[in-house]
Amino acid sequence: MQKYLVEFIGTFFLVLVVGLSVIEPGGAGVMAPLAIGATLMVMVYAGGHLSGGHYNPAVTLAVFLRGKCAAKDVAPYMIAQVLGGVIAALLTGFNKSGASVVAASPDVVKALLNEVLFTFALCYVVLNTATSSKNAGNSYYGLAIGFTVVVGAYAGGAISGGAYNPAVACGITVMGLSTVSNIWIFLVGNFVGGALAAWVYKMVNPDEK
Amino acid sequence: MQKYLVEFIGTFFLVLVVGLSVIEPGGAGVMAPLAIGATLMVMVYAGGHLSGGHYNPAVTLAVFLRGKCAAKDVAPYMIAQVLGGVIAALLTGFNKSGASVVAASPDVVKALLNEVLFTFALCYVVLNTATSSKNAGNSYYGLAIGFTVVVGAYAGGAISGGAYNPAVACGITVMGLSTVSNIWIFLVGNFVGGALAAWVYKMVNPDEK
Amino acid sequence: MQKYLVEFIGTFFLVLVVGLSVIEPGGAGVMAPLAIGATLMVMVYAGGHLSGGHYNPAVTLAVFLRGKCAAKDVAPYMIAQVLGGVIAALLTGFNKSGASVVAASPDVVKALLNEVLFTFALCYVVLNTATSSKNAGNSYYGLAIGFTVVVGAYAGGAISGGAYNPAVACGITVMGLSTVSNIWIFLVGNFVGGALAAWVYKMVNPDEK
Amino acid sequence: MQKYLVEFIGTFFLVLVVGLSVIEPGGAGVMAPLAIGATLMVMVYAGGHLSGGHYNPAVTLAVFLRGKCAAKDVAPYMIAQVLGGVIAALLTGFNKSGASVVAASPDVVKALLNEVLFTFALCYVVLNTATSSKNAGNSYYGLAIGFTVVVGAYAGGAISGGAYNPAVACGITVMGLSTVSNIWIFLVGNFVGGALAAWVYKMVNPDEK
Repeated sequence: MQKYLVEFIGTFFLVLVVGLSVIEPGGAGVMAPLAIGATLMVMVYAGGHLSGGHYNPAVTLAVFLRGKCAAKDVAPYMIAQVLGGVIAALLTGFNKSGASVVAASPDVVKALLNEVLFTFALCYVVLNTATSSKNAGNSYYGLAIGFTVVVGAYAGGAISGGAYNPAVACGITVMGLSTVSNIWIFLVGNFVGGALAAWVYKMVNPDEK
Repeated sequence: MQKYLVEFIGTFFLVLVVGLSVIEPGGAGVMAPLAIGATLMVMVYAGGHLSGGHYNPAVTLAVFLRGKCAAKDVAPYMIAQVLGGVIAALLTGFNKSGASVVAASPDVVKALLNEVLFTFALCYVVLNTATSSKNAGNSYYGLAIGFTVVVGAYAGGAISGGAYNPAVACGITVMGLSTVSNIWIFLVGNFVGGALAAWVYKMVNPDEK
Repeated sequence: MQKYLVEFIGTFFLVLVVGLSVIEPGGAGVMAPLAIGATLMVMVYAGGHLSGGHYNPAVTLAVFLRGKCAAKDVAPYMIAQVLGGVIAALLTGFNKSGASVVAASPDVVKALLNEVLFTFALCYVVLNTATSSKNAGNSYYGLAIGFTVVVGAYAGGAISGGAYNPAVACGITVMGLSTVSNIWIFLVGNFVGGALAAWVYKMVNPDEK
Repeated sequence: MQKYLVEFIGTFFLVLVVGLSVIEPGGAGVMAPLAIGATLMVMVYAGGHLSGGHYNPAVTLAVFLRGKCAAKDVAPYMIAQVLGGVIAALLTGFNKSGASVVAASPDVVKALLNEVLFTFALCYVVLNTATSSKNAGNSYYGLAIGFTVVVGAYAGGAISGGAYNPAVACGITVMGLSTVSNIWIFLVGNFVGGALAAWVYKMVNPDEK
């Protein structure tokens, strides 16, 4: 149960910072991607030793496929993550009441490809820095994981919204930053990206089990 | 006595950078939250081995409740921190003489909630990265702690002022960035957030003593 | 073969982020250099244990001259890197279709000198942090390497375009950010900078083999 | 001799990045302090195992007073640092030919105090993170040292120019960013700050020799 609480807390803060820093007025402007990725970084460092610090159903899928997340944890992890994201989105709505939020209208092909690519990058970094025995005991895994989201948000935020995380996708949909009819872009793109990362990880790390 | 001096120095620089980077002209504009959180980071790395590197009465409360700060140190730590913050605020006033400082007028409910949430996040990160035996010897604790404040300042600075620290609250009150009548928001919000973090820490780390 | 795939992936994302963050609209504005250097950082951490994490023919040359890259790997590494860069550039063109891209027209002498200097700095940092036995087991090599590119892009981006990497040079040429007639500036400047770094590394580390 | 070359290289790049990122057009705007501090960070990581990675006569003084720099190295270190700074300044002048550079006219009392305070902070962080036996083997010393300069430049750059380093002071004087008649502010402020840091370091670390 503790692990699920840790996943809830981390995803809650991740989505809360997405909402508070992206929605203006009172947002972080050009620094929002840094704030968002840094939130993931600090929560990975705080909770990595407890739950693995996924905070992202696509990461949970990738870690499960790579063999480092028990099957029985997959559904509870994803539920805790989505719950954290939705509650954070509701709280954001309360804090930003009065702000005019306009949903993005992305090009579907570009957005889907972008979500696949950067979710792949995120899960590829997670698997290599946080689950590979050759990198055991390192102090950089949170920095690497968090800044992959910083990078993805700066580079691809304008293309797809830059979620790279189905729990974040649920959150920004609740906030009104993305439409309900577009949520499949994130769900499909993120889980495909995560599964691809697990497959590539195994290919380039044939010795790891 | 050395520990108290270390707490004084770290909190002094933290509040000095808050004042110098937030108050315009001559401030850091959109980069102020990065400068403030980075100050906490460097002072945690410089003083962590000496005093624990709290620089924040709410952190001292959380570390005390978690059992890693001696009862006899609690009051002197808090006094050293508040003293450092107030002296830094006076020095800021000297350096920024002539600047027109306008006190924030936050929505009390939103501000209180925001201070509870991000002080909770800060103390939760401190307890997990700097006091957990499973993470002993890591090199990331300062990065994680400092960037939790970066995140909190970017995400919640517009809501409550983003102190997350009673010594910083005293400092910004002396500087005129916040009113005396609002200081209770920080004192209540920060100590409640710190206590909550200690309680959750124990819940998710049942093996730690 | 796995190593070449890792080099391909890392260089692909590096050049993709260069294109997506530099080309407006939808770019990262003043934060583009941070996004670019952070991409190198996360890919170095993800792939360093697999391929060494070069993602740059000039780095491969420097590591080869320093004696830590097998001769038989040099050509395949460089081919994988350039291939990754060119494919990322084509994908950028697809994502940014409609954007008006204007090629830089740098002062040749200043640009060449700038590419030599910061490629030297990059390779000097790589050799000292990632191949020196005195620094074995450290957790900072990716941070140091990635932020050397952050620094070079902020300081010298306006002078030469700030590639410091022949694979990036190929990518920005395909994207139209640089002209075909100027690509020799990067090829000469980057390989000279890398070779100089290997020579200086050996001079200041006489004990390393 | 190798150590002096390492000090020359690091200070050269530090001052080159100061010039290229601060002087507009073609500078780094609001990101200049990040670029400057990051340069110190990467050079500390690259050269720390060789020369200690001072790149700053005030740091050399502080490390000497703390007992970790041989007396015979003090003068050559400072000469190498100033030489690196001046040559970088001349190169900056070549690269930025045509830019109109206006020297700052700081309030002397505020500037002197600011240089003392943040040079103290820098040397205090250096001594505690890079020379204390309790922190031996850590991976964060470069991050802490570099970001102390990031902080100092954002918070105090507008007050004194934010050198915190006599070699940088020489460099910005050659570049025309500061006047010859004001260089004493930096020399006095920086060496006083460094000496103070050594004194406080010994006070709070009575066990260290």
